[in-house]
Amino acid sequence: MSIAYLAIGDELLRGETREGNGAVLLDQLLARGLRLAETRTLPDDLEGLVAALHDLARRHALIVCSGGLGPTEDDLTRAAVARALGVGLVRDVELLAGIAERFAHLGRSMHPTNARQADRPAGTAPLRNDHGSAPGFAARLGAGVVVCLPGVPREFEGMLRDHLDALLRDTGLATVARREVTLRVFGIGESDLQGLLDELPGWGAATMRSLPTWPELRLKLAERDDPAAFDALVTAVRRALGWRCYGDGDADSHAAAVLRALRARNATLAIAESCTGGLIGHLLTEVPGASAALLADAVCYADAAKAALAGVDADLIADHGAVSEAVALAMAKGIRERTGAAYGLATTGIAGPTGGTPAKPVGTVWLALAGPDGARAWRYGFPGLDRSKFKCLVAHMALAAVLRAASGPDPA
Amino acid sequence: MSIAYLAIGDELLRGETREGNGAVLLDQLLARGLRLAETRTLPDDLEGLVAALHDLARRHALIVCSGGLGPTEDDLTRAAVARALGVGLVRDVELLAGIAERFAHLGRSMHPTNARQADRPAGTAPLRNDHGSAPGFAARLGAGVVVCLPGVPREFEGMLRDHLDALLRDTGLATVARREVTLRVFGIGESDLQGLLDELPGWGAATMRSLPTWPELRLKLAERDDPAAFDALVTAVRRALGWRCYGDGDADSHAAAVLRALRARNATLAIAESCTGGLIGHLLTEVPGASAALLADAVCYADAAKAALAGVDADLIADHGAVSEAVALAMAKGIRERTGAAYGLATTGIAGPTGGTPAKPVGTVWLALAGPDGARAWRYGFPGLDRSKFKCLVAHMALAAVLRAASGPDPA
Repeated sequence: MSIAYLAIGDELLRGETREGNGAVLLDQLLARGLRLAETRTLPDDLEGLVAALHDLARRHALIVCSGGLGPTEDDLTRAAVARALGVGLVRDVELLAGIAERFAHLGRSMHPTNARQADRPAGTAPLRNDHGSAPGFAARLGAGVVVCLPGVPREFEGMLRDHLDALLRDTGLATVARREVTLRVFGIGESDLQGLLDELPGWGAATMRSLPTWPELRLKLAERDDPAAFDALVTAVRRALGWRCYGDGDADSHAAAVLRALRARNATLAIAESCTGGLIGHLLTEVPGASAALLADAVCYADAAKAALAGVDADLIADHGAVSEAVALAMAKGIRERTGAAYGLATTGIAGPTGGTPAKPVGTVWLALAGPDGARAWRYGFPGLDRSKFKCLVAHMALAAVLRAASGPDPA
Repeated sequence: MSIAYLAIGDELLRGETREGNGAVLLDQLLARGLRLAETRTLPDDLEGLVAALHDLARRHALIVCSGGLGPTEDDLTRAAVARALGVGLVRDVELLAGIAERFAHLGRSMHPTNARQADRPAGTAPLRNDHGSAPGFAARLGAGVVVCLPGVPREFEGMLRDHLDALLRDTGLATVARREVTLRVFGIGESDLQGLLDELPGWGAATMRSLPTWPELRLKLAERDDPAAFDALVTAVRRALGWRCYGDGDADSHAAAVLRALRARNATLAIAESCTGGLIGHLLTEVPGASAALLADAVCYADAAKAALAGVDADLIADHGAVSEAVALAMAKGIRERTGAAYGLATTGIAGPTGGTPAKPVGTVWLALAGPDGARAWRYGFPGLDRSKFKCLVAHMALAAVLRAASGPDPA
């Protein structure tokens, strides 16, 4: 009882489009406790497609196909399935009327080739497409079921969401209505995470996978068969992770968690970034409504800018160097005072590849946070990271510092 | 004479690792005027692998395999190829000594399973791996050649670089030593680009593909058989694109082009970003040496910050609104004066999803640039883009404005 995926289209093998629908399907299956047994990518070639469909249908219960449903001559998926089934194509008059209506609505004339999108192999069941023009269809082939969906990523994903559960049910694939909890994690590597979680009892209640999206992790826990034990395990995992677990679900972000924490205590933030170069501001302003908590972000790249924008004394930089505890603290306090924010955050470091010294090698960074209950600074060293990864890791360390401060006991 | 790709590993079908080596191989082939005929992903299952190897070798001249060469029991690629060839495994004593030496060097004891990495199917040719521990190998199977490389992306890519040309030559695959030129393009969509290029004569000299990486494009032109005609065509394409073609090669970036242009005339830049939230600074500081031209970037998210960091008069905001020509110009001039930069760049707009009005709907943005020869501002409307895409497009429009100003005739 296995599932295969078949991506169809010359453009995928010529580098014009990158195949991504397989990963979308896999993610949907994993969330249901299933997985893929095999994937293939084939060009728009009738003989090759027919042979592959027969081969896959011999060994798999469900074959999900993506692509080749467009209106042009090289879209051969309908014809290939019809040939594999030994049937002809029929034109769906209702669908045809719908397509014609859409063209009329857009004020465009409908080319005869567009009518091809209303064709499907005789005896197959249409699958409604609420996300685009070409519907999909499903057919029994050999011991399995072949499902054909459009290759446009938005349409493929939308139709999967709409139809996958019914298809799995009809195919008799044992999908468990399992809950899956996604925990968003920063501040621990995969092997340390494994070590931490191995200590917990109760793993019989869940399957676990961790998806690294550096420098973060997504930890996915799927219920097995005991809801109460699963809930207890999730609670225990959250407790073990502590501040490192900043949120829930695939749509959350570290920056969104920081903004939630700030808003929860009606606090504002201002930033003075040096080595992170605007990335902290960029991450925070990706979140709708960031302006409610983020007042300003002074990217003080040149030393003179640290004075002009964050009020750092030029002598302080001359005495300690721009990458120093004193300057990080002055930046954090300076931007806090200048903007009246509850928290002032600062980063200053050496992103490389040049600019390091023996005392302050490339990868050295000072973070500072000034808040209602005083200021503190942290020094880190991240040698060996390239410039882009260095910026990314430091930006997330900075977000974590704000999150911990703003989530702690209210000092007021 | 076609080429197939086979990715091997349970982890790829369980969502633990995302398959990316196929795209790397495809890119290498495309650069040589070749493409893929088929790709497959299969689990670590001996029977399935043997069947697929036979099937692929019947139809393709070269089968490139990735993965399954590690030291553990579930790494079955060696065994599968041996079974397909009808031979046994032999242990390479020289390789074994090399692996033992590496363990000794690291002060670790070598587990007997590690010796498996010195095995290969009898009669196959080893492929040196300068990027990791497990070597690859190549074997003639049916009418084709099977090549097995490690799945670790860095090793796969490195070995491809080292061995692909020789493998293609030995397989008799007609690779042309063709030059490929990659032009980096911003400011034109794919269909307009097509229209622009269709007007040019001389397309017989090159094949063309465009890779959209929104909001940019990479245009790849590959030489056919007339070097002089190819050079003339590339020159004509560059001329037709004008300022829209900002650079060359896959490693270039729009931000790097801006920094090059600034440095070429010894000019500096300061930015006051509102709606782009730090993204312009982030893009520029991804480039090593950005500090030579970028002085500061004041992300003035709150209205008060526009006054505190960029010296914008609060009355001006009250009179015109934060998203206005007057405020954009004041931000650009203010940050320029405050930092002494040659150019002052500003963005102010409504990223959404909320905050729009009938007169200034979501997607409205003002860009301004103040320079040695005065200041000017531009209004754009990008309705329908989500927040993240809006920021990205506006940031690139802003980079393009600086690039055009700094590349134009020197006003001095």
